[in-house]
Amino acid sequence: MSDPRPIGVFDSGMGGLTVMRALMARLPSESFVYLGDTARLPYGTKSADTVRRYALQAAQALVARDVKTVVIACNTASMSLPALREALAPLPVIGVIEPGAEAALAAAPDGPVGVIATEGTVKGGAYRAAIRAAGGETVPIAQQACPLFVPIAEEGLVNGPIVEAAIRRYLDPLLATVPKPKALLLGCTHYPVLKTEIAKVAGPDVTLVDSAITAANAVAKLVDERDIASNAAVRSIRFLATDAPDRFANVGEIFLGQPIDPGLVELVDLQ
Amino acid sequence: MSDPRPIGVFDSGMGGLTVMRALMARLPSESFVYLGDTARLPYGTKSADTVRRYALQAAQALVARDVKTVVIACNTASMSLPALREALAPLPVIGVIEPGAEAALAAAPDGPVGVIATEGTVKGGAYRAAIRAAGGETVPIAQQACPLFVPIAEEGLVNGPIVEAAIRRYLDPLLATVPKPKALLLGCTHYPVLKTEIAKVAGPDVTLVDSAITAANAVAKLVDERDIASNAAVRSIRFLATDAPDRFANVGEIFLGQPIDPGLVELVDLQ
Repeated sequence: MSDPRPIGVFDSGMGGLTVMRALMARLPSESFVYLGDTARLPYGTKSADTVRRYALQAAQALVARDVKTVVIACNTASMSLPALREALAPLPVIGVIEPGAEAALAAAPDGPVGVIATEGTVKGGAYRAAIRAAGGETVPIAQQACPLFVPIAEEGLVNGPIVEAAIRRYLDPLLATVPKPKALLLGCTHYPVLKTEIAKVAGPDVTLVDSAITAANAVAKLVDERDIASNAAVRSIRFLATDAPDRFANVGEIFLGQPIDPGLVELVDLQ
Repeated sequence: MSDPRPIGVFDSGMGGLTVMRALMARLPSESFVYLGDTARLPYGTKSADTVRRYALQAAQALVARDVKTVVIACNTASMSLPALREALAPLPVIGVIEPGAEAALAAAPDGPVGVIATEGTVKGGAYRAAIRAAGGETVPIAQQACPLFVPIAEEGLVNGPIVEAAIRRYLDPLLATVPKPKALLLGCTHYPVLKTEIAKVAGPDVTLVDSAITAANAVAKLVDERDIASNAAVRSIRFLATDAPDRFANVGEIFLGQPIDPGLVELVDLQ
């Protein structure tokens, strides 16, 4: 049996396109509809209440497009996962936090694990809780908020003096913690585009864990287990943005790793 | 006659506190109520329609607090000045664009004038139009969007390698234009906190024009002309934020140049 309904992917903006990219590669027969809440980004500096309200509105817009599952491709919004699962049940909802935490533990079973993320994600402590819940009860965890990584990535900067200075600003104190992290979790969907430079500063003895890839693996497993995979020969890819669809197509290319046809980006109002 | 009603000041976030700071210094007997739309910042990457809608909601929230004039301390939102003036009439509304354009022409009557601002302000062309309207019909104008300045300033960075690399990224091409600008207009309320480092890169032959100071002068003139000045011995200062009032108090200190008591920051909902 084939379920041709699309998989819904949600992010505060364009960073979640790194998850979309991993999903498209991992699940070549699946259709996708991606919603970026570009009118209200960034979520990383917003309160938990506001993020929850925004995430619910976005998830409901995807449900209205008949998706078979919702992927919260936004670390900050993943904090609202319990509320989203309750609101959308029985539709399955997958976040990026749990798969990332599991992958970090697989890379460094006894830790230490370093987590770099937005201010909101770090303060919310979701990765810490997920690592504990996944069996890492005694694993040392060091967290570091990196507020400049998102605007730097959205400017299309992936190397050069600004990127290097920003990475050093955040990673130097984190790597100087005793004991030094063995695994470094990229806890924001924007960060994979900076992965090469982050790896240079972190050095070869630190394993980088990309939560976009680990989330894609989790979705593949879910689709298989629930028997809702599609075997369509041709899939559809659509994008929804709450503001500036042209800019979405333009900047989004950095994160999706391929050009986005502006004609495929629809402007939607969530309010 | 004394008019003790407060002056309303509006910005997308905390950058407008540089205007507030200039206003408080220029008008020591006036009370102020400042509204930062922190839930929906930044405005710089949003469409003109969205910015107009948000600015109207914010201005109406200030009117509900019985202000005697509204200062749009946000360059991006100043583009919506005609719509705001129409909606709030007969209440006077002042933006930062016109005073800044006039000051730039005063500093370099024949130009060239350089304008640095957010992506939205540069694309909207408001400074170009205001310089033309203020008598600079033939003055050469060069514009440069500086998207990283706002997140850098909001991180509290005012010097160091990231600041220097970012200033060079944006100013080097602008200063290399032929002819080189004689006046450089800081067309975003966040930029005054980077003024010292910007001046170092621009060099002594470029006059920096700070639109916070020029806007404060314009408000002082208006209050005087309309005979709505206050002669109160004790004034009140209040802050409204649409999200994360604690963060507002914390980060706002950078821009206001003095500590903000978190108890003075009220959370408001504009929707």
